[in-house]
Amino acid sequence: YMKLKIAVLPGDGVGPEVTAQAVKVLKAIAQEFDHSFQFKYAPVGAVAIDETGDSLPKKTLDLCKNSDAILFGAIGDPKYDNNPAAKVRPEQGLLKLRKELGLFANIRPVKAYDTLLDKSPLKKQFIKGTDICIYRELTGGIYFGEKTLSEDGNTASDLCVYSRAEIERITHLAFKAAQSRKRKVTLVDKANVLESSRLWRKVVTEVSQDYKDVKLDYLFVDNAAMQIILNPKQFDVILTENMFGDIISDEASVIGGSIGLLASASVGDYFAMFEPIHGSYPQAKDLGIANPIASILSAAMLLDHFELFEEAELIREGVEKSLKLNITTPELNSKFNHITTTKVGDFIEDFI
Amino acid sequence: YMKLKIAVLPGDGVGPEVTAQAVKVLKAIAQEFDHSFQFKYAPVGAVAIDETGDSLPKKTLDLCKNSDAILFGAIGDPKYDNNPAAKVRPEQGLLKLRKELGLFANIRPVKAYDTLLDKSPLKKQFIKGTDICIYRELTGGIYFGEKTLSEDGNTASDLCVYSRAEIERITHLAFKAAQSRKRKVTLVDKANVLESSRLWRKVVTEVSQDYKDVKLDYLFVDNAAMQIILNPKQFDVILTENMFGDIISDEASVIGGSIGLLASASVGDYFAMFEPIHGSYPQAKDLGIANPIASILSAAMLLDHFELFEEAELIREGVEKSLKLNITTPELNSKFNHITTTKVGDFIEDFI
Ligand SMILES: CC(C)[C@H](C(=O)O)[C@@H](O)C(=O)O
Ligand SMILES: CC(C)[C@H](C(=O)O)[C@@H](O)C(=O)O
Repeated sequence: YMKLKIAVLPGDGVGPEVTAQAVKVLKAIAQEFDHSFQFKYAPVGAVAIDETGDSLPKKTLDLCKNSDAILFGAIGDPKYDNNPAAKVRPEQGLLKLRKELGLFANIRPVKAYDTLLDKSPLKKQFIKGTDICIYRELTGGIYFGEKTLSEDGNTASDLCVYSRAEIERITHLAFKAAQSRKRKVTLVDKANVLESSRLWRKVVTEVSQDYKDVKLDYLFVDNAAMQIILNPKQFDVILTENMFGDIISDEASVIGGSIGLLASASVGDYFAMFEPIHGSYPQAKDLGIANPIASILSAAMLLDHFELFEEAELIREGVEKSLKLNITTPELNSKFNHITTTKVGDFIEDFI
Repeated sequence: YMKLKIAVLPGDGVGPEVTAQAVKVLKAIAQEFDHSFQFKYAPVGAVAIDETGDSLPKKTLDLCKNSDAILFGAIGDPKYDNNPAAKVRPEQGLLKLRKELGLFANIRPVKAYDTLLDKSPLKKQFIKGTDICIYRELTGGIYFGEKTLSEDGNTASDLCVYSRAEIERITHLAFKAAQSRKRKVTLVDKANVLESSRLWRKVVTEVSQDYKDVKLDYLFVDNAAMQIILNPKQFDVILTENMFGDIISDEASVIGGSIGLLASASVGDYFAMFEPIHGSYPQAKDLGIANPIASILSAAMLLDHFELFEEAELIREGVEKSLKLNITTPELNSKFNHITTTKVGDFIEDFI
């Protein structure tokens, strides 16, 4: 029996729709396994700006700090994107949340589901069997370094900075993960150009000495962007800094056939947040076409985090079954195009 | 009749082998069209370090400055990659060359050749007809911003900085190119996080007002990394900053089936350099398996640059013919695996 306080931050765009399905599935799990999950909601992102003027209101942050885990939807609204002068931005809420909660490791599994091999733009034989786990550093680098804009508005800068300690802690997580997988870590960096990447290479090489059973490989980010498409099966755990991880993991999503399938966990020493890797997809809002599976699989990662492995596995079985039976949203479904976000959630709920 | 002084910088790894084929082809063109091309050689990269201790010796730079164009091979040697303490690096030579010659725009065409559609890891229907031209800023951003390493070696940083002037000049080139293509420019940035990206978005939007006949689109780099695989045909000209351009253009190379096909031009106000986008590929050195086509097509871009369009076209026809007849190096050739770098060059030379 487990009691969990879960903060739910649906956010913008399709965030609320997909998160609602994940909550539904978690409720079914609680009932089936006799756990008690308590859900409390709070705004973040553009909806929070509209409500309060702040993309991460204090009461949202407080709720997160007083919860055992956070279920996050999506963030972003086009009305802020093309306005370089906007003083508040939805994304700031997400970045601040990551920083304040110390969520330094973003873990993104990428798998090619056998039932979906045909959906990928990549040929079957290149992707079948792919099973990658990306460890992206999430609270450092160019995302959080000092930003400047000159007074005349004609020069802008962003600083990418990393310390040994920041690199060490995520490196340990990545190597530990590799030990229970295929025992290989690939560090993605740009050490032929960046000083910060050379520090990554040095520190990761040192830490790797503690894990003699894991092989360490190095790849420049430009080459990695190619290799992920040319031969994704060569990878086991990919370890990388914040910006490269952002790019590489979105790119890797094409392997699975839909970014709507990819879940992620963001963990730190004290807190953990679970979210789909897709964005707010504003064009799809309220159309019932957003794929809830990434959010539902994020809920499974949440259960894993609390060592509720059997429960997490049941969700994953429900997901695989829905894929096999073609109970999927339109982007994956050439047969039926009327299966909505909610119906996919209902199916997995019923399965449980 | 044209007289050109061409500096040839073969560089490291397979650089010399592939460059030799491009020179051979240019000589054939000179003979056929009665031009006079004079070739002068100079070392750069790891070979230059080994010879002189400097990755870009002064006499190499001087030769470049006194030439009409530069034909560049490749750079990089693994013996420097995993040595974060190395004081000189081959790549510095290339970066210094770009900076000293003011080569601010790197132009990388990406095309899906009909004869090679089967070679790509991507399914035919996704790539057929792809014709993208990437404009990558090449002398600014995080490549050239201040780098620091703390005294204790535990903190490292790289500064990404851009000025309005740097953005404007390449933006004009990109829009002009789009005018004689499909009239669409896609700016790739990370304006939801980076101050420098917001400056890009602002300046590019302003410059676009001068080109009312060209449509301007915006894409975040993570999304772009996905879209290039999911739907490459949506792109015409892609405009982006240095680091994103490095990643995105290597990634886009998978569309053509081999990075060994992709040529690039790096141009500035006074100088122009032509090089394959592939690296030094040290494992293949002297094996005769490196594809010379990227280097040969770089020679064609060189001719285009001097408005020798007919000559350039003839080279391209030779290349297409070699692809059609399967006169290609092993990575593209499932039928014959004994066709060497030199044989491909010979074929195209003969064709001319
Ligand atoms: C919304 C944006 C700030 C965010 C990021 O870049 O980290 C998103 O792309 C992600 O990957 O979670
Ligand atoms: C060798 C390296 C410094 C270079 C770069 O990153 O610019 C290369 O990858 C390229 O794209 O020309």
